[in-house]
Amino acid sequence: MCFSKMITNAWTNNKSMVCVGLDPDPAKIPHFFSDSSESIFEFNKAIIDATSDLVCAYKLQIAYYSAYGLEDQLLKSIEYIHEHAKWVPAILDSKRGDIGSTAQMYAKEAFVRYNADAVTANPFLGLDSLKPFLDHEDKGVFVLCRTSNPGGSQLQDFPSPDNPLYLHIARTAEKSWNYNNNVGLVAGATYPEELQQIRSLVPTMPLLIPGIGFQGGDLESSVTAGIDEDGMGIIINSSRGIIYAGKDADFAEKSRAATLDLRDKINAVIETRQ
Amino acid sequence: MCFSKMITNAWTNNKSMVCVGLDPDPAKIPHFFSDSSESIFEFNKAIIDATSDLVCAYKLQIAYYSAYGLEDQLLKSIEYIHEHAKWVPAILDSKRGDIGSTAQMYAKEAFVRYNADAVTANPFLGLDSLKPFLDHEDKGVFVLCRTSNPGGSQLQDFPSPDNPLYLHIARTAEKSWNYNNNVGLVAGATYPEELQQIRSLVPTMPLLIPGIGFQGGDLESSVTAGIDEDGMGIIINSSRGIIYAGKDADFAEKSRAATLDLRDKINAVIETRQ
Repeated sequence: MCFSKMITNAWTNNKSMVCVGLDPDPAKIPHFFSDSSESIFEFNKAIIDATSDLVCAYKLQIAYYSAYGLEDQLLKSIEYIHEHAKWVPAILDSKRGDIGSTAQMYAKEAFVRYNADAVTANPFLGLDSLKPFLDHEDKGVFVLCRTSNPGGSQLQDFPSPDNPLYLHIARTAEKSWNYNNNVGLVAGATYPEELQQIRSLVPTMPLLIPGIGFQGGDLESSVTAGIDEDGMGIIINSSRGIIYAGKDADFAEKSRAATLDLRDKINAVIETRQ
Repeated sequence: MCFSKMITNAWTNNKSMVCVGLDPDPAKIPHFFSDSSESIFEFNKAIIDATSDLVCAYKLQIAYYSAYGLEDQLLKSIEYIHEHAKWVPAILDSKRGDIGSTAQMYAKEAFVRYNADAVTANPFLGLDSLKPFLDHEDKGVFVLCRTSNPGGSQLQDFPSPDNPLYLHIARTAEKSWNYNNNVGLVAGATYPEELQQIRSLVPTMPLLIPGIGFQGGDLESSVTAGIDEDGMGIIINSSRGIIYAGKDADFAEKSRAATLDLRDKINAVIETRQ
């Protein structure tokens, strides 16, 4: 199934715009996992089992695995999503960007090695760096547009508030990159005004929105700014707020409760706007 | 030893500005390696042994390893450089760029897991995405500025030829990122005029220059544009032109000959300019 159909099904079936970020830091997961040789996979499995009927996607941040040589556990986690949460897409958050021949290798990493349903990508090198991802027409490609971190403004706001790079990216995504209708954009919840400008330029693209919770993004304003005309089109990511909701034996139930709470809050905002 | 001292030593001792790109595609290395379970490492070892007195750096493009799950052979190749070509820095070409907490993980990947001497980084997310790399004051950080690929112009030339993003990056690198004096810039040989503009803004930073050979960059004009006042300061990368110089039993000698040829051509340009 192609990504756009998959995400639409997940939005509809689970009545959810929540994406759980599976970015487990070995130093932060509950201590009783430390006996397992596959502690990260076991932790992810528990979170997936507890949340798969409440989410529209899982996003796996590859850095948390590659820093420690845990590629095997990343692969097993994605396989587990495919087997046990078939209707929920797995987004590999790798933000790669390189020249064409190298980008071919990165597309292989994401879509062949890890069999992800979608990927994040860095647009700094332009079309030929994105093409190897975009050419997989059944896969989703979320291109960074306005990131959630404070330093993002150093380049993304250049040269001026009237004509910033992030709007140039949104226009270029619509015009030059979306030839397979599989592009989405990443726009942080920490900048809801920018999010609204971006949405106005890409009325039908899915928006992956990080920055809720720990990073301080405002939920109500970013949901309002991000939703499309059908009251859908957003993927609100929460990582730390969900996966570290508890530290004890009931950590999975607590992550379920946190997911449910976020889902309901998002849906409440959407309902009042329609 | 810190990176800037290491690269200066390598420039001086090997009288070379050549960097060999160890980006071996399993489908392209000589067929007689296919019997080995560590074919990529064995191939790299032969190239390193044949060239270590002729180069100023090795650059390892991580995508060629991660596409196939060959992280172990990447690690062994960097270890081999540290042991058998001690005076030559190993640059991990990973072009990562992510929010601060994730960038911490990527810095761990580059400098702890792989023990690289330097890394390439993508500036799209600004200072807090670079800081975890920059804070390793003994390591080098090559920030993308004007890449060698054609698509690079989509963002890097924005908004206008008078005031393009790549010059904003060069200025920001000089002003905001170089607090540990360990920043270099990546500027492609395919755009020598842009290279010259960049050099004028960062008179003392090392420039990593890809795009010679297969990508069509002009050697003479890019060496002339890139060298600093001391006739040094450039790291000219060649990957395919060196590692695939031969396909038969004498492939390593051929890679040595190609390295020597490139080294001498670069040095000849520098001599005529001084």
